[in-house]
Amino acid sequence: MAEYSIGVDLGGTNLRAAAISAGGVVLDKTSGSTKLSEGRDAVIGDIVNSIEALKRGRPQDSLAGVGIGVPGFILIEKGIIVGSNNLPEFEGFPVRDAIEARLGTRVILENDANAAAMGEKWIGAGRDVDHLVLLTLGTGIGGGIILNGRVVHGYVGMAGEIGHMTVDPNGNPCGCGNFGCLEKHASATAVEAMAQMLHLGEGVTSKDVYEMAMAGNEKAKMIFEAMGRALGVALANLVNIFNFPLYLLSGGMLPAWEFFAPTMIEETRKRSFTYRNAATRIDKAVLGNEAGLFGAAYLPLQANSSVL
Amino acid sequence: MAEYSIGVDLGGTNLRAAAISAGGVVLDKTSGSTKLSEGRDAVIGDIVNSIEALKRGRPQDSLAGVGIGVPGFILIEKGIIVGSNNLPEFEGFPVRDAIEARLGTRVILENDANAAAMGEKWIGAGRDVDHLVLLTLGTGIGGGIILNGRVVHGYVGMAGEIGHMTVDPNGNPCGCGNFGCLEKHASATAVEAMAQMLHLGEGVTSKDVYEMAMAGNEKAKMIFEAMGRALGVALANLVNIFNFPLYLLSGGMLPAWEFFAPTMIEETRKRSFTYRNAATRIDKAVLGNEAGLFGAAYLPLQANSSVL
Repeated sequence: MAEYSIGVDLGGTNLRAAAISAGGVVLDKTSGSTKLSEGRDAVIGDIVNSIEALKRGRPQDSLAGVGIGVPGFILIEKGIIVGSNNLPEFEGFPVRDAIEARLGTRVILENDANAAAMGEKWIGAGRDVDHLVLLTLGTGIGGGIILNGRVVHGYVGMAGEIGHMTVDPNGNPCGCGNFGCLEKHASATAVEAMAQMLHLGEGVTSKDVYEMAMAGNEKAKMIFEAMGRALGVALANLVNIFNFPLYLLSGGMLPAWEFFAPTMIEETRKRSFTYRNAATRIDKAVLGNEAGLFGAAYLPLQANSSVL
Repeated sequence: MAEYSIGVDLGGTNLRAAAISAGGVVLDKTSGSTKLSEGRDAVIGDIVNSIEALKRGRPQDSLAGVGIGVPGFILIEKGIIVGSNNLPEFEGFPVRDAIEARLGTRVILENDANAAAMGEKWIGAGRDVDHLVLLTLGTGIGGGIILNGRVVHGYVGMAGEIGHMTVDPNGNPCGCGNFGCLEKHASATAVEAMAQMLHLGEGVTSKDVYEMAMAGNEKAKMIFEAMGRALGVALANLVNIFNFPLYLLSGGMLPAWEFFAPTMIEETRKRSFTYRNAATRIDKAVLGNEAGLFGAAYLPLQANSSVL
């Protein structure tokens, strides 16, 4: 019986890892920066070193495995990143196998939003439900879908790209080729673009816009209202498609909840018969940045469990 | 070991039932009209009589059970229809329990689009895949989602309401309270409304519009192009959310495929990175009206199987 697992959160900026017990207690953790400028092998080396450090002093057979959350499109069975804006050097590279070979330990590669959704399901805001969707509101918008306690991967592992849901067919252009993607209307990037449109100042960040809204600036408030409406269109679609009991929001934009939530809920209510007629909760995630680390650690524990 | 199962398709107009072997062969079938004007009890009586007729002469213990597909929102565990435009008299009535009590046989109630999706998965266009989405293009638009060979029901059974996905936040008003629902832009009803807008004649049906398009009428063709674009927005969203290998279309509008498919595929391609980068098929369903009957019959067979 495994006693602990190691979760890794490999971001474009930070590399974090933690040893977490099967009961969800953090035993030890490490963090550093992702040294992309030193090349892919250096980053792989840092990942392996972090994991080795966390393994030290613990019995080999008590480790369930290693889960690694990474930003981008993942081919789940192959353990390959096929597309990642934040980790371009890793595209097409067999990340999982490279790390497995050096560690001699089972490794599971997962999309970071999926890992965060799994973390919230395991010991976060979703621990009492079997099904949930998580949206991560950051520079972009990621999505993770949990059905019957497991990540929905789809055919090759690219499911859950909710940030690219069309919320307005004639909306803002997106790098993915679409117009009106959710993430072009409701991410930090979208908030900053709207701030520019409304002449709120050069180089204004989403945090600045939040502070302006806190200070009563009406234009800043309008921006979050627009963000909330876009989220509402997407959430209504998700509620109509999934009829899940819980939809969670997380990420850097979460503090602005009070400014975007009213229009978000209003829009969801208006657009979804199911929302109005079946118990459905739209709420804040609770694990913050830790969700992905917990979720990544949980994946090997889940994979080894015959109960789940 | 069950040798056969009975599927029932209870529509607002027609009541059909079939005895189908575990191998998917139709052993016997009955059909009649749904006598809504004679009241709910008369319809229940007709359903029970159809099933009894199909059971006659077959050994009691070889029947796996009865599956009934019905239009509307279903509370799956309770076996209750909570909302149905076509069967208003059945709303809130314990249909499943009433029929089970009279038959002494296990009954499973299912949404008709979910049943059709299951039928296509079992012995139709989806028999070679594990995951698919089916859209039924009729007076309205229904949806059924199959993941790992099973219907996705969501929390209470209301999942798959894809006809109410927003394809244009400022689009046509829908009875569900939303604006721009897929079914208000891509159903037979939507085609007829567009024909009226384009002055194609009083009381023109979707079939008339199809025939006009066949005869080269440019306005009729434009209508199907608009229908295809709306479907493309919805399909791109589904592909981005699910990353399934197969999306099937069925229903009365299917013959117009040649007129709506080009813009549908163009729009899906433009709007979905996943569609362009992962093997994804959008295709015609093959079982037609029989899909729901097959799928309904399959449900008790699947429920009794320990393999699936």
